[in-house]
Formats: sequence, structure tokens, C-alpha cells
Amino acid sequence: MRAALLREYHTRLELVDHPTPEITRPDEVLVRVGGAGVCATDLHAIEGLMEPAGVTLPRVLGHENAGWVEAAGELVTTVAAGDPVILYPPYSCGLCVPCRRGDDIHCVNHDFTGLSLDGGFADYVLVRERSVIKLPDALAPAEVAPHADAGLTAYHAVRRMAHLMKPGTTAVVIGIGGVGHIAVQLARELGSSRVVAVDTEGDRLALARELGADEAIPGGDGAPAAVRELTDGRGADVVFDFVGTDQTHAASTEMLARAGTFSVIGYGGNLPLTSMELVVDEKAVVANLVGSWTDLYELIQLHAAGRVTLKVETHPLDAINDVLDKLRDGGIIGRAVLVPG
Amino acid sequence: MRAALLREYHTRLELVDHPTPEITRPDEVLVRVGGAGVCATDLHAIEGLMEPAGVTLPRVLGHENAGWVEAAGELVTTVAAGDPVILYPPYSCGLCVPCRRGDDIHCVNHDFTGLSLDGGFADYVLVRERSVIKLPDALAPAEVAPHADAGLTAYHAVRRMAHLMKPGTTAVVIGIGGVGHIAVQLARELGSSRVVAVDTEGDRLALARELGADEAIPGGDGAPAAVRELTDGRGADVVFDFVGTDQTHAASTEMLARAGTFSVIGYGGNLPLTSMELVVDEKAVVANLVGSWTDLYELIQLHAAGRVTLKVETHPLDAINDVLDKLRDGGIIGRAVLVPG
Amino acid sequence: MRAALLREYHTRLELVDHPTPEITRPDEVLVRVGGAGVCATDLHAIEGLMEPAGVTLPRVLGHENAGWVEAAGELVTTVAAGDPVILYPPYSCGLCVPCRRGDDIHCVNHDFTGLSLDGGFADYVLVRERSVIKLPDALAPAEVAPHADAGLTAYHAVRRMAHLMKPGTTAVVIGIGGVGHIAVQLARELGSSRVVAVDTEGDRLALARELGADEAIPGGDGAPAAVRELTDGRGADVVFDFVGTDQTHAASTEMLARAGTFSVIGYGGNLPLTSMELVVDEKAVVANLVGSWTDLYELIQLHAAGRVTLKVETHPLDAINDVLDKLRDGGIIGRAVLVPG
Amino acid sequence: MRAALLREYHTRLELVDHPTPEITRPDEVLVRVGGAGVCATDLHAIEGLMEPAGVTLPRVLGHENAGWVEAAGELVTTVAAGDPVILYPPYSCGLCVPCRRGDDIHCVNHDFTGLSLDGGFADYVLVRERSVIKLPDALAPAEVAPHADAGLTAYHAVRRMAHLMKPGTTAVVIGIGGVGHIAVQLARELGSSRVVAVDTEGDRLALARELGADEAIPGGDGAPAAVRELTDGRGADVVFDFVGTDQTHAASTEMLARAGTFSVIGYGGNLPLTSMELVVDEKAVVANLVGSWTDLYELIQLHAAGRVTLKVETHPLDAINDVLDKLRDGGIIGRAVLVPG
Repeated sequence: MRAALLREYHTRLELVDHPTPEITRPDEVLVRVGGAGVCATDLHAIEGLMEPAGVTLPRVLGHENAGWVEAAGELVTTVAAGDPVILYPPYSCGLCVPCRRGDDIHCVNHDFTGLSLDGGFADYVLVRERSVIKLPDALAPAEVAPHADAGLTAYHAVRRMAHLMKPGTTAVVIGIGGVGHIAVQLARELGSSRVVAVDTEGDRLALARELGADEAIPGGDGAPAAVRELTDGRGADVVFDFVGTDQTHAASTEMLARAGTFSVIGYGGNLPLTSMELVVDEKAVVANLVGSWTDLYELIQLHAAGRVTLKVETHPLDAINDVLDKLRDGGIIGRAVLVPG
Repeated sequence: MRAALLREYHTRLELVDHPTPEITRPDEVLVRVGGAGVCATDLHAIEGLMEPAGVTLPRVLGHENAGWVEAAGELVTTVAAGDPVILYPPYSCGLCVPCRRGDDIHCVNHDFTGLSLDGGFADYVLVRERSVIKLPDALAPAEVAPHADAGLTAYHAVRRMAHLMKPGTTAVVIGIGGVGHIAVQLARELGSSRVVAVDTEGDRLALARELGADEAIPGGDGAPAAVRELTDGRGADVVFDFVGTDQTHAASTEMLARAGTFSVIGYGGNLPLTSMELVVDEKAVVANLVGSWTDLYELIQLHAAGRVTLKVETHPLDAINDVLDKLRDGGIIGRAVLVPG
Repeated sequence: MRAALLREYHTRLELVDHPTPEITRPDEVLVRVGGAGVCATDLHAIEGLMEPAGVTLPRVLGHENAGWVEAAGELVTTVAAGDPVILYPPYSCGLCVPCRRGDDIHCVNHDFTGLSLDGGFADYVLVRERSVIKLPDALAPAEVAPHADAGLTAYHAVRRMAHLMKPGTTAVVIGIGGVGHIAVQLARELGSSRVVAVDTEGDRLALARELGADEAIPGGDGAPAAVRELTDGRGADVVFDFVGTDQTHAASTEMLARAGTFSVIGYGGNLPLTSMELVVDEKAVVANLVGSWTDLYELIQLHAAGRVTLKVETHPLDAINDVLDKLRDGGIIGRAVLVPG
Repeated sequence: MRAALLREYHTRLELVDHPTPEITRPDEVLVRVGGAGVCATDLHAIEGLMEPAGVTLPRVLGHENAGWVEAAGELVTTVAAGDPVILYPPYSCGLCVPCRRGDDIHCVNHDFTGLSLDGGFADYVLVRERSVIKLPDALAPAEVAPHADAGLTAYHAVRRMAHLMKPGTTAVVIGIGGVGHIAVQLARELGSSRVVAVDTEGDRLALARELGADEAIPGGDGAPAAVRELTDGRGADVVFDFVGTDQTHAASTEMLARAGTFSVIGYGGNLPLTSMELVVDEKAVVANLVGSWTDLYELIQLHAAGRVTLKVETHPLDAINDVLDKLRDGGIIGRAVLVPG
């Protein structure tokens, strides 16, 4: 099969002829890729930053995968050849205590398709049955593939804050990119806050408004003051930071209301907090990694019901390096998806 | 009446003859003090650090008050003259949205008895009816006074984490002082974690064991490694830091398990976090200020049922400056309570 | 002032000249009525069925009130003369344990404007400050008055079930009348279930569809089977019964999925359950009375944000008996509101 | 191997030589039985009442099993030969949506060891890996076997109500038998209510007091009034009915406080409720079936920590029919466990 291989860090992916993976366990599923979303994490992997997440070389990247079941091991019962599926990227054993609580993210036998295991920038990808979610018939794999990570991460982060997003409160979403543009919609669907989108790019703010944001304001040094002004000085009850720089982290804590919660998704920056500033206003900082299988299942149901949409542009698999360049340059609005020809 | 007055910062309190406060609103209650706990916050107030909390001079300190109703305004219905009461220190209007949710801590018309208003280091203290909780008959005011702040803070912090303290998890309590020695008991009562007490003083560790801690280990640089060893390398699911220095904050995050929560109560230090370290293990940092009226009500019910005890030493009101010295020197195990003669 | 008085059960209300109520406590507020919703409970009161709720004769009915502050007692701080307000009908003391938890419904000193106290079928109504919610400027009292009870009840019932209304689940709303037509919208806003409306009248089903119901099916004996069919045999995860007859209660339990919850709002019928049928599928039955002040506050914020609408028809106060007749005959779609001329 | 076989309803079990089950799937585990608790459900099965739970004849009963791993299929990773284990009786697929939420009770591919599949009244029992929980070394299988169902059911029911069992509330446990005597302890461990035990037998009330009940009162017609008296007329905030007759169901609802919850575990009787009585006090009825794998895991951790104890009497496997007689006659205090010789 064709696969886009990361052979050395800091180099372009190589489109090679690669052995099609084979089912060797009775609980495995071979999936023909229908679409594979391209994520900033792929850029980080190429830069050599994802070794803590288990990347070794060579590796087929691609963790936002959807497609059709090609073959299934003999113990597999929930899908059959031909079924359209989306792939939950974390590997989870299903038997450890976190898995038994439904908290697959924290499986003690963790792996991650497209990082520590070969992923979907290829014609086929091999996973275990626990990574598979059957798609409703109406959904085409390439249209929903980005939910596998971008949507999943947004859903998990927003769902955990939904109980705080009561009518009369304000939630800020910083960063209206691949993940954030889904989060804006989910903030509306799962919570009842007024939703304020923040981004440095005007076309992304326009997208946020189109997707239901009540307000959309420019990022940068003026954002905290703008949020204070929108809230009669109170600040935001919940702030989601999907960017993760020193600057957005500082802005997030600065615009937070008394008893507010800062939800960290984008990462990379420093959080130079004092306990005094947290305690005096009883604030909280909650970090988010990815999401559970049921988070992805629920998100897919919402998508099928028309309550959330994805802004997707599709490209052929062999355009992978161009797409990575475009993503690196901030040229992608929403999400790019690779489709094997 | 007699009152211990803070007239100037960095000076000893003056025991003076002070006008007894008078009821001027129909919802006020005059309370004869039966006991007033002495807290590290009083030391901070004397050092001039509590102006952000509304301290102005001169001020009668004392925010851990219990006593008997001396007189009540004409709209007061829940207590009558002679009733034993404990006083909830935050003033709350009862009418703003946070108050209507039961979240009096975040009343938009906040005040605090003993800091922004005159407190209980005196023969009498004046409060509004919303600050009063009637004591069960069996409880003497001087025995329970420290619950008004030390107990309340411990209760609030532990109760908020109780859903995480499942059987099979580990909770660490750092700092077995006036607040922490109550928290150890409440961790047992409200949660089902294994409870590990951490303190630098051996007699405080002994107290922790006596009060139900499953383990008690020395504070300092070795504490995180000791907690890892007790948990087969996993770390603590919840860490309560009642001390609040750079050192205890760093130890707290260092000993935290994957998906663990750091509950900050003691403050003063820096929290030099990166978003990477929070996100990669999906950790949370939750700060605590004080507690709600119902927190204090519930704590008093637990005390009356014998499920929590207070380690209290009583002193006459005129010993206030000696007691403050002893507290400053770390010489008080549990809590000191002033009793007007 | 003019007032519509219930002088004897089973008679028409008398429009009389009645003494305008006067402020006698410093926490009271006199409100000029701008609109008063007419509710089936008013019919029950006229039939003599509401004595358990504290009705005595003569009584000015009307518990869905909104208007403008005419005068306020001297301790009142949250509103001033001229402010538009909606009135939370339960009286709550603010000092008992349920009130301190934000659970005003279960105030131990309960009263209810328009039932145990004189209500809003009049030019003026007198309440305490705790019953007042200031309206956002954009909202006219007569447009939102029905939220005071119909909306409040719908909001409370739906909010309590929102955590069960996950994407992929099904919620049924039985009875698309004054309360149910708001519940359909709130099910969409607060939950993520597919929403199925059930009613015996076609125009009400049409209203439900217009307000966001995903499906709308005829009530009656066939409803449980129709719900099973819509859910591949599983049944509904949550059923809200806003009607309350033997027939709707039986249909509700019959259409409930394994682990489903039956939310009872309308009442009057029998629930002939066996513990076997509840246990074997682990079902729950949860009853709802009215709602809290914060429920009403939150609902008003949603209305102001355009996320919920009320279907209202207005009538002059002196048409009260005609309106009651029309309501009794099922002729009102949505809610009728009386407006003093 | 030896096995006690139910060959025909209404007959005594036959102790026969039976083929030892064999591992045929790579995820199966063969367990040598160390102890098998005897439960009232076994009596119901013999009476032919458990066909709705999947019983077919002939059947080896026994669903409260613990023992040692004898052999494990090749995909099994969480246990190895020789490990002490307790067996979670519901079969769960691990792949359906309820399983993925951690809600194995509602697995769509449900089965139940000892009812729809052969159980532990035998030398060996065969299960899948998902049914196995490794025991801490200190726990002997025969000592903890009853937790597999009696303890699990108690834990699940109490845990679901724990958030309602705040300090100052009252919880009633009706029926201090095999399940109830564990529930009394768990009410103390997981909640903070005053715990009132109700039973018709004095020795069971004595056991309840010994295990931590704050009050223990005789069952029967006087129980609701006795509970009202203990609570100043308010009634119980939570009532657990572990008996399940018409009489205990009626007593349960009669003793319930305003806003109280009736937790149904024992079943068989009628619940002749009207919606009026539920709505007017905003009551709830919540039924419980068994519990999740993590419920059992958590309970075992509590047992290992010494926070819950089991009252167990052991008998040899060949005494099974005598033990069933003794159970039928109410002669067992706590739980009887069969131990293969």
C-alpha cells in the first residue's frame, strides 16, 4: 500500500510503498482509509517533539482517521467488512481500572495510533476493535475524520466544563483553528454561556460568528480588557485556550472571573501563577489531553443530528507535504483531510 | 466591653475598653463571645498583609467566633437571646446570584467579620442573621469556635474533592496544623482514599495518625519520592496543600498522579507550571478560599455526631498577644481559642 | 386597585375594587402588574383543589407575574422603583438550610404568591425582595410573565435531567401545552437528546416541530409503540410527563428504556408500579414541583439571549373569566397573559 | 469436577460429577472456586422465578464466587495462574456504549454467571477476563466471596445516593440481611447521614448497631412513625429498602422526607403511588439492579483497608441443600459461603 513515512525528523514525509498491515490478533480490525485529518501534532512529530508520546522512527503519521472496515479478526463483533468507521486514536486495553470507568484516556497500557503506532497517512491502518466506532450511514468518512482528534479534544474539554456554562455566564474560546472552530459550536450545544471567540485573524473570527459565537474579538494584548468590558467588569467564567502560548495563557488567567475556570488545551507556554492569585478568587486550572471513546461516539451522534459541522478541505494523499506546509503557514481554515486516491 | 484592637500594623494588639456594638438593622444579631480561635491570618493582618481582604485600622480582629445570642433585631427568626451559635465569617447579602446558588463565598457584596468588620477578640461581636448558625445543645461555643474558619476551610476543600477520593485512590494532606488536622479527619469521613499526612514536625505526624491518617511521612524534599513509593509509582490522586510555600507547591505537583488534582489552600508561594506538564497528564489545580454557610452547618452536624474532633487549647482573652507569639513560633498543636473571662 | 377575587369555590372570579397592598416590612416590594399568566392551577384553585397548597378564601389568584417596581422597603437593595421585574412565586425565607443550599422550593417557611398569598390578577401585588428578579431591559413584562411558573417548572424539570440527555439518547415530552412547549425548547438547549414531542392535538404537534422537536407523534395508546419504533426498540432514556393522567403515566413507563428515568411534572393520575419492573431495568421516577429562584433567573437569561421563546396571547384583566373558560376548553395554544389596562 | 446442579425447579440441587469447563476463547479464565456465597436469588432460581434473568435447566447455580486462577486464555493479561480473584457476575462485552461508559450492568450483550451461565457451586467456574478482579494478597477468597453480589449490590445502591447523604440528613436501611448488613457499613463509609437500621429481628438490629448504625428500630407498622419521631417529624432523606415486600415499600414511602429519595433494591411488592404524592413533596424513586465492575473493585479496596467487614459463615459444598434450607428459614445472619473441600 502507499504510506507517507516519517523516516527522519525535520525532513519531508516520504510517500513509499509499504507493507499493508495484517491482522494477527482476533480482536484487530483492518481499515481502508477514507480520510485522514492533518493536525498541528503532525508538525510537532516531524520536529521531533512527540517522542514523549511514543513516536519512534520510521513512523506512518495520521491520527484523525475514518474509513471502511476491510477485514476483522474472529472475535470482532461490533463491525463487519464494509462498515464505515471512525477511529478513536488512543489504544485502550479495556481491562485496567481507568478503562473500566470509561476513562480510556488514562489506560495504563496506553498507545496512540499515528504516533506510537502507525497511522492513517496511508491506504490502510490496523487497529483493535476498541478503537472503532461505526458511523451512521449518512456520514462519509472523509467528512468526519477530523472529529477523531480535533473534534474529540474539543468535545472532551467543553463537556467537562458544561456544568459551569450556565445561562448568564460567559465562556471564551481562544483560537478558532481546527479544534477551536468545533469548540465554539460545542460550547453552544453543550452549554448555555454567552460564547466569545478570540483570534488574531479576521477570517477565523468571521467563521466563529458563522458557527454561533455571540461575540468575536481580536486576540492580543487587548483581549482581556475587551472581555472585561463585555462582562461589566466581571470577566469570563470559563476560558478555553486552544493556542497554548505564554501570551494566550497569560491572557486566559487575566480575563478570568472570580470563581472562574481556565481550561488548558493548547500547550507549550508557561503558566507563571502564584497561589495567592488563584486562592483569592478561588480559581481553577483544568488541563485536557484528548477524550474518551464515548466522547467521540457522542460527538458523532451530534454531527449526524446536524448540531455540529466541520469545516473541511480535502486533498489527495500525495499532497501531504504541501498540506503540512500550508498548515505550518496558518493557511488552513478549519481542517485539511487527506483522501487516498 | 473589652476588645483587643489592632491600631497599627506591626504592633501588639491593645486590650482596650471599646463601645459594645449596637443593633441598628432589624436583621442584626449581637453575640456574646464564648470563644474566638486564633489563626495565622491574624498574624498576616498584624503584618499589614490583609488589606486586600478589606482590613482597615483600627480593627478588632477575630474571625473564628462562637458564643451566645445576646440580642436580635426584630426581623430575626432563626435564633433568639440565649441560643448558642457559631458565626460564619463571610458576610453575604443573600440576594445576589452567587448567594442564591448557596455560594455565599462569592457574594458580590462581600465582607468578612474580623477582617473588614470588627471581630470576636472582644466580649461582643455584631453580625447579621445570615452569619449565624445555631449550635446543637451539646456543643460548647469555645470547643467548636475554630470550625468557623479553620474547620470551614478544611471542609470546603475536602468536600469539593470527595468525588475523586474513591476507594483505591490516595490523598495527601500537607501541613497538619490548625486546618490540616481537621482535613485529615474529613478526608476519612467524606472520602474513601488512603490518607497520607505530610508534615515537618514529628508531633504533628503523630497527631495525624491519631486522627485517622493511614500513613504519616516527613515533609521536605523527600516527600514526593515517598508518596511515589507508597503508591507503586503512581503518585497521589489528590494533594491538599495547607502550607502554601514554594516548596510545598512544588512537592504537591511533583507527587501528583496522572489525572490527579492539586487542591491549593495555603498560599503565598509560586506555582511555576508549564501547560505541557499539566496537559500531558491531564492534571488540574483547584484553589479554595473559605467555605459556604452550608459547609459550616454540615461540619457542625459532623462534630455533633462525633465524627470529627478539634484539638483546642483555651486561653483568656487578655493572653491574646502571648498566644499570637506562640502561634508565630509554631508552638500550637491544633488551635488556640481565646475565652473572654 | 382592581383585583379578580376568588370568593367562593366553583364560582367565577369577581372583578372588584380591592385595597392596594401596602409595604409593612423593610424587605417588601410593591409591584405594578404588567402581565399575569393564566395557568391550569388557577382552574384547580377555583375547583377547591389547592387548599393543600395553602389557598384560603377570599383570594386574589395569579402566580405568573411580571411588572414594574412601584415602591420598595428601606432594606431593599437589588431593585428600585421603575425597574421591570418578574416574580418568583414561592416565598422563601433565605435562612433555613434548604434556602441556604439554593433550594428555595423546599424552604421550611414556604408560601406561594397567588395561592397562599394574594397574587397578580390585579393592578398591584406585594412580595418580598427574595421573590423579585430584575428583567433585562429588552424584555417586556407581559411577554415573559408565564416564565414565572410555566417556564420555571419546565426549566427545573429539564435541567435536572440534562446530564442524562447525552447525544445519542432520546427524550420524550408528553403534553405540548403552556409548560410543555417551553420544555421542548429547553430539552434542545440544555440537553443533546433527540426530542420527541407527544400530544393528542395536531396543532400542538405542529408547534412542537416549529420549536425544535425532532419528532412529533400523536398521543394515545399507540405512543409507546411509536417511541419504541423510533428508537430501534430501545425506548426513551428520559420521559417528561406534563399531563399527569393515568393514561400518560402508564404510557410514560411503558416507553421507558432500560436505565431510563421518568420525570413526573403533571400530576393527578396513579402510578401503578411494581418494584420488579423498576429493578429489572434499573429505572427511576423523579417528581418535580416548581423550581428555584436561580432556575428562573437562568431561564430569563436564556430568553434574553433568544434561545427560548414563549407563545403568548394577551387579554385585558377584565377578560379573566373568559380566558379561564378558554383554558378549560383546551382553546389556548401556549399561554394566555392578563394585562391590566 | 463436583457441581451442585439444578436439574428441575422445586427440587433439591444434585451434587454430581460434572465436566470441568474448558477454555475455548483466548479471553477466558478458568477459576478454582475458593468460596461461593448463597443468596436468596438462588432460592428464587430453584422456585423457577429467574427465567427472566436467563436461567435454563440444567444449571450450576452460584453467582458470588471467589477463588484462584487455574488457567487463562492467551490474550489474558490482567491475571495469571495462581492469582486470587473475585468474580464480577454480570458478563459484559466491553464494547457496547453502556460498557464503554463503565456501565457494565446495562451491557447490551448481558449474561450472568450462576444464572444464565454455569456458576460457582462447583469446583471450577469459567468466565471471561472482564469478570475477574484480582484480590489483594491479604484477602482470602472465601472471606470476600459474598461481595460479588451482596456487597456489590449494596455498594452500588449506597454509592448512587452518597451525594444526598450529607451531614445532618437521615438515611434508613430496611432489612439487615446479607445485603443490608453491608449497606449499613457503606452508608457510614460513603455518606454522612445518621443511619437508622430497620429490621423485624432483634439479633439483626444488634448486628446493625455493632456495624455502625446510629439507631436500630423494629420493622413493622410502627417504623414510619418511629423514623418521624427520630427526625423531628421531617422523615428520612434517603430510604433503602432491601426487603421488597408490599409492606416495606409502603413503609419506605411513608417515612420519606420532603425532597427525599426512595432507593429500591429488594423487589417483589407493589408500589401503589400517585403522582400527586410524589410531586407535592418532590420525591424520587430510584431502582437498583446490581453494580458495575468498578463498584466491586472499589468495594474490595474498602474491604482490604478494613473499612467494611463481612459477616460470613462457611460450609462445605456438599452441605448446599442444608444451607439453602437454613437461608429459606431466615436462619442465616450475614451470609453463608460454600467452600469446596
